Amino acid sequence: MATTFSLSCPIPLQLTDRILLGHGSGGKLSAALLSDIFFRAFQSPVLARMDDQAVFEISGTRLAFTTDTFVVKPLFFPGGDIGSLAVHGTVNDLAMGGAEPLYLSAGFILEEGLDMDVLRRVAASMAHAAQASGAEIVTGDTKVVEKGCGDGIFINTTGIGLVRKGVNLSAANASPGDRVIVSGMLGDHGMAILSEREGIGFDTSIVSDSAPLHTLVRTMLDATAGTSLSAIRCMRDPTRGGLASSLNEIAASAGVGIELTETAIPIREEVRGACEMLGLDPLYVANEGKLVAIVAPEAADAVLAAMLSHPLGADARLIGTVRAKHPGLVTIRTVFGTTRIVDMLSGDQLPRIC
Amino acid sequence: MATTFSLSCPIPLQLTDRILLGHGSGGKLSAALLSDIFFRAFQSPVLARMDDQAVFEISGTRLAFTTDTFVVKPLFFPGGDIGSLAVHGTVNDLAMGGAEPLYLSAGFILEEGLDMDVLRRVAASMAHAAQASGAEIVTGDTKVVEKGCGDGIFINTTGIGLVRKGVNLSAANASPGDRVIVSGMLGDHGMAILSEREGIGFDTSIVSDSAPLHTLVRTMLDATAGTSLSAIRCMRDPTRGGLASSLNEIAASAGVGIELTETAIPIREEVRGACEMLGLDPLYVANEGKLVAIVAPEAADAVLAAMLSHPLGADARLIGTVRAKHPGLVTIRTVFGTTRIVDMLSGDQLPRIC
Repeated sequence: MATTFSLSCPIPLQLTDRILLGHGSGGKLSAALLSDIFFRAFQSPVLARMDDQAVFEISGTRLAFTTDTFVVKPLFFPGGDIGSLAVHGTVNDLAMGGAEPLYLSAGFILEEGLDMDVLRRVAASMAHAAQASGAEIVTGDTKVVEKGCGDGIFINTTGIGLVRKGVNLSAANASPGDRVIVSGMLGDHGMAILSEREGIGFDTSIVSDSAPLHTLVRTMLDATAGTSLSAIRCMRDPTRGGLASSLNEIAASAGVGIELTETAIPIREEVRGACEMLGLDPLYVANEGKLVAIVAPEAADAVLAAMLSHPLGADARLIGTVRAKHPGLVTIRTVFGTTRIVDMLSGDQLPRIC
Repeated sequence: MATTFSLSCPIPLQLTDRILLGHGSGGKLSAALLSDIFFRAFQSPVLARMDDQAVFEISGTRLAFTTDTFVVKPLFFPGGDIGSLAVHGTVNDLAMGGAEPLYLSAGFILEEGLDMDVLRRVAASMAHAAQASGAEIVTGDTKVVEKGCGDGIFINTTGIGLVRKGVNLSAANASPGDRVIVSGMLGDHGMAILSEREGIGFDTSIVSDSAPLHTLVRTMLDATAGTSLSAIRCMRDPTRGGLASSLNEIAASAGVGIELTETAIPIREEVRGACEMLGLDPLYVANEGKLVAIVAPEAADAVLAAMLSHPLGADARLIGTVRAKHPGLVTIRTVFGTTRIVDMLSGDQLPRIC
């Protein structure tokens, strides 16, 4: 019997009997946890679509709904803090569904002994970030746990947004021939956190890119008005697990291959250098103010031009193409002209990055 | 100058410079934290209404939106677990706003080393509770923190519900002459947790009352159809801080006094005995499947009768009246015929009860 070579890996990742840090990575262990525990228990078709937000209709109005919990360490870092991050993270998950952010909830878990001034600064930062993103924090909850049972502040933000008429974004929409566009330099957030946390203090100061992306998305959707709103197939903000994980999720969801060109991927020299020093791959490092979009070929130029005109898309680049071959896989043509697979990580490069 | 005696306490509670366990109690320290930090920072009129849920209109549809984080200890207790509690808590906050629960989000913070079977049981329990309450868990998030930086499982649930047409419940609606009705026996949840946590093992087994109240609320609203939907002024589920805290919030919000009759308040003998033994007041002990309603006098009988016809309202009782005098205060006529003030607690009787 002839053996056939397949690029896909059919071996399922076994679930361990204990929770590991890697289960929170956004990588393979996270995916295994989701499918083996949560999807199996909750049995929701909306949840199983694995988009960054649920979209549903209530009385004829299409809404997006998304939740995110923030456990970032340290609480304050160059370019932001847990408060602004908690707002941007949820606003961006709404925006990735083509929704205008409207309302946010905020749920706090505070550790006994937390400095009240720290909480005051975080709340002020959240308020400022919410105002800047046009979302109102309308409901909240606070719990306190004993010293040693928490870690300063954990914040859950959950958001509701209004999905723009005619927009229907989902990873499953990606089709062969579509272009892959990234909105700017990758890896800034992760390296800023790491630098601050580990006291590495890179020569140049790397600053988190944490920002609300809803106006960039608005600009992009406007740019497709001439063709069709469905020209933008889907968008992701590559947070935990970085660009590599987001694209792997899209490839798996749509059953397509994604082919990247390494030389086209925008990465700051400082970030690249810091990653090399630490043995990290910037494609897996978290971003908090970047998006990757899968766009129909006929609309790619217009969408890219619109992004370049927006402050948060000034470094946008076309970085790859969706292919029919190698479904479920992300590959990259390296600077050396070779091709390698960009797999999802099993565990965690950087725990507690968001 | 003549001195006038006032029953209200004008001395503001000073905010400490560190978070205390009592800041999570639902009592005075919680209220101080809300007003000094969160309300000041977020400046939302919806938030400042201090109802258990935000109600707003999107494209003509009135929605309720509420968030709650659960840090209950232990994770499993007689009558429930953190999973079912997380669903019931949020479903009930929606129901208290007159809303039918529709969609839930679930955000998990897991501690490294958590037994996977524990998570599996909790997820199954959440799924079962969601199904029973007609709400679908449609979006989620999982974070993992290092061992010693969390405590097993923390769960945030945030919910969206559809507010019934014509219903407009808010604590501010309570008016002199209104009746106070409670849906059943008080203090079961708190004493069940305490018994399990402290290994007290009361002779009789006290079981948490954790349950979804949306069908009871539906029955109550149906019962007012003959008069006016606004006959039910407001509802609260007296969780953290118990009945005393819920009624104090209503009294403060509406600027009314609330007068209770001690002999009318339904409390199980076992709960009363356990509370006496431990020096606790059952009026401050948490419930997770009870509600207190403020109802216009002309509708009180019909609403009470409707409650008594529902399994979750079988022990419902009329326990008091809203008064114009002593605005902001809750008083109780004791079994001895004297009257005492039922103030909010400063700190915490029982931390991590939900």
